[in-house]
Amino acid sequence: MTQFDKRNISMMMDFYEMTMANGYFESGGEHSRVAFDVFYRRNPDGGGFSIFAGLEQIIDYVENMHFSAADVEYFRAQNLFSEEFLNYLANFKFHGDIYAFPEGTIMYPNEPIMTVIADLIDAQLIETAILTQINHQSLIATKARRIVRAAEGRFVSDFGARRAHNMDAATLGARAAFIGGVNGTATVAAGQVFGIPINGTMAHSWVMYFKDEFEAFKRYAEVYPKNTMLLVDTYDVIHSGVPNAIRVAKEILEPAGNRLKGVRIDSGDLAYLSKKVRKMLDDAGLQDCKIVVSNSLDEFTITSLLNQGAEINSFGVGERLITARSEPVFGAVYKIVAVGNDDKFEPRIKVSENVEKITNPGLKDVYRIFNSEGQAVADMISLKDEEIDLSTPFRYIDPVKSWKQRTFSNCTARKLLKLYVKDGRRVETLPTLQEIRDYVKQQLDNEIWQEEQRFENPHHHYLDMTPNYYEMKMNLLYKTRSQLNG
Amino acid sequence: MTQFDKRNISMMMDFYEMTMANGYFESGGEHSRVAFDVFYRRNPDGGGFSIFAGLEQIIDYVENMHFSAADVEYFRAQNLFSEEFLNYLANFKFHGDIYAFPEGTIMYPNEPIMTVIADLIDAQLIETAILTQINHQSLIATKARRIVRAAEGRFVSDFGARRAHNMDAATLGARAAFIGGVNGTATVAAGQVFGIPINGTMAHSWVMYFKDEFEAFKRYAEVYPKNTMLLVDTYDVIHSGVPNAIRVAKEILEPAGNRLKGVRIDSGDLAYLSKKVRKMLDDAGLQDCKIVVSNSLDEFTITSLLNQGAEINSFGVGERLITARSEPVFGAVYKIVAVGNDDKFEPRIKVSENVEKITNPGLKDVYRIFNSEGQAVADMISLKDEEIDLSTPFRYIDPVKSWKQRTFSNCTARKLLKLYVKDGRRVETLPTLQEIRDYVKQQLDNEIWQEEQRFENPHHHYLDMTPNYYEMKMNLLYKTRSQLNG
Repeated sequence: MTQFDKRNISMMMDFYEMTMANGYFESGGEHSRVAFDVFYRRNPDGGGFSIFAGLEQIIDYVENMHFSAADVEYFRAQNLFSEEFLNYLANFKFHGDIYAFPEGTIMYPNEPIMTVIADLIDAQLIETAILTQINHQSLIATKARRIVRAAEGRFVSDFGARRAHNMDAATLGARAAFIGGVNGTATVAAGQVFGIPINGTMAHSWVMYFKDEFEAFKRYAEVYPKNTMLLVDTYDVIHSGVPNAIRVAKEILEPAGNRLKGVRIDSGDLAYLSKKVRKMLDDAGLQDCKIVVSNSLDEFTITSLLNQGAEINSFGVGERLITARSEPVFGAVYKIVAVGNDDKFEPRIKVSENVEKITNPGLKDVYRIFNSEGQAVADMISLKDEEIDLSTPFRYIDPVKSWKQRTFSNCTARKLLKLYVKDGRRVETLPTLQEIRDYVKQQLDNEIWQEEQRFENPHHHYLDMTPNYYEMKMNLLYKTRSQLNG
Repeated sequence: MTQFDKRNISMMMDFYEMTMANGYFESGGEHSRVAFDVFYRRNPDGGGFSIFAGLEQIIDYVENMHFSAADVEYFRAQNLFSEEFLNYLANFKFHGDIYAFPEGTIMYPNEPIMTVIADLIDAQLIETAILTQINHQSLIATKARRIVRAAEGRFVSDFGARRAHNMDAATLGARAAFIGGVNGTATVAAGQVFGIPINGTMAHSWVMYFKDEFEAFKRYAEVYPKNTMLLVDTYDVIHSGVPNAIRVAKEILEPAGNRLKGVRIDSGDLAYLSKKVRKMLDDAGLQDCKIVVSNSLDEFTITSLLNQGAEINSFGVGERLITARSEPVFGAVYKIVAVGNDDKFEPRIKVSENVEKITNPGLKDVYRIFNSEGQAVADMISLKDEEIDLSTPFRYIDPVKSWKQRTFSNCTARKLLKLYVKDGRRVETLPTLQEIRDYVKQQLDNEIWQEEQRFENPHHHYLDMTPNYYEMKMNLLYKTRSQLNG
């Protein structure tokens, strides 16, 4: 029963998607057009932004969605569904349209990062899979970026597989971490499937298997003379590990014209040890030998290490990256925002006592607004296909201070929601993983304010609205509240 | 490119497993016998125990482990491995033996929960997959148990898929949560693959799709008259949701002889709302209508709700269960403990400045010791196959207070490590998932002290040693330290 070798990921859904789908089918509503938005409400770890990731897997999923005879039989056995509906499922294909931010886009709370416009059942059935993919990959990409930022240009590799929340979390987590900026992964399956550079040398078991540490290091250097990276903390870093590593460099590697590539420290006081080890290596003429550290690292421990003057060239980051330990939940949601009525879409709004939980209704576009230096000063929601002319000062509404008169002057705009899937098929060539990673870096280097990227009290990006969109939302809110109170 | 429909999970490993394997191969060590233990050091959330989960998937994995031509080609492309080794990989099958606790066993820090005895390469290659599976499933099973305990017998269902760390985390997490005691899951794939009861009714989108809330509820009741569970918080629980639900009960369900099964509240002050809703339902003669709540629940919020007298029949628990949010890392490790030498195994120990990080060397057995009332008073490590005779008082060593003379009197012992895989094939019929879940409950109801199960300052289970085992460990520690200092 190797249930994880082969699987139909179409079945990765909450059961309520299916009870609702059958309910819509029974109500004759299966061909109503609806629109759902994906958005989230808060950046993890108090950060100033998040990174949108997982789009490629979502497009794979919707294109291949289907229910096998065994799947249909499983639903039949629930004794809830009509034969007509089960027959409909057996022939089901996703036929909707999906708009989304390009993968790797820097994103902010409360803006739609994806819009699904589809028949009601199509739109409903894909909810869980979309959210799982976006929530997981965006979480890890965003966390990875924080860690990469803390490392200030040093090499960072994902070592997290063994503490990941199972195999997808290890492999798709490695993908997301690469998007966020890590340089490589230890996870072979992620290297194979996604082309991420892989790295890995030895565990403590290698050192403990041989009769002593020198013998273990010597054997490794003989097998990998060009890639000798030695784990020096099995017994005692200063008194045993590093002296044995230096001896191997001098006795085995250098006579054959090779250099000791690096040493890894996986325990102890990494600030103290790294400085001491650097000096020992330098004194032995091994200035080019790199120091790699690992052991429960994240952006906070890395920042602290570097503030202490630690001598580190490379970080192996495991459990705190691959589980996003400090905040392991990314809260993207999928909300209905419009229902088709003849040729038009009627906006829907979810009211709430909590003003931040009121949804942004209707079909819409999202623009990123850039100042004349090319920096992103705000995002702006408009009505879908509303014309935005920034050649003259453009009046907008800041919904938090809606009474103020504000304009964008000397600004440009980039539309963020792009059509990726039309009638169930992809209509856009997807970027490579490397291109997604480069796009993240380019935005953060050139477009996104440094004030939004710092860890402590980052600037909160503005989410503004066009006057037309704001008026539509306020009217709908007023109407809905009147009905409730009436 | 549906890389998650089909996959070779044999590739789910850290790359260093392969660089070491090649190194052992090049050193002629591939047929050395070694033993590795799996153990962990700390219970999550400050708890008194953890639940061992994931064994069935590990056995599936080792039985099916293989490298396809494409996998071998991927390794060849790394330009690190010899053709002889790549050829060896192409024909690789796991041939080792695996001892483990039965799945669902209550476990404690620092005892071996699994021992792999195998040829060196076999034992090394399976490290990552074993740890990932145990770390993930044990984490979620242990968390689930805490939530189930807090719910004090009320129905608990896993609603976590959309916040899980991708698809395996949703499905295998649901499996683990079921082992830990939850009653069902919303995740269809978990229901299908593992036979877990599934449940699910409606989202806010159902309510928002229809022209008003009453119409939405009415349609649902017409489609599912025997299973009408209504989500009442889309607009206003007290002024709209519950009145409309009661109206549906009276106007649609009761005339046809049906009852309103339940209402669900997914936001707001659940303590206040549930009490108010209970009264409204009771006043309407709907005493049998259940109240289900959801919204970022865990053992802490559930305890608080029940302390406030909340009127809740059932909990839907999502992100905080499926990510084990309060502590999302389970730290099981895989350490070499013995190396074969002719017919014997030489124990290996990893010393450390930190006394808690010193490993327990050598081949061993673990016994759970029960008093005459059948309560588990301690676990005890012995040499492997050491005879334990409890018919007379049995002297043991508490390694924390090793100078004290202590005995087990009127006690019985159960050997916990069982042989599951012999020469790469399973030799034990595995229990069903329901049997595993029952076993967890039976241990917690009858064997494990309540003092170990409480959340606040639980009693720490003793991990003792036989005098023979303790002496072997101390001798080895002394010898290893002498060598280091010499």
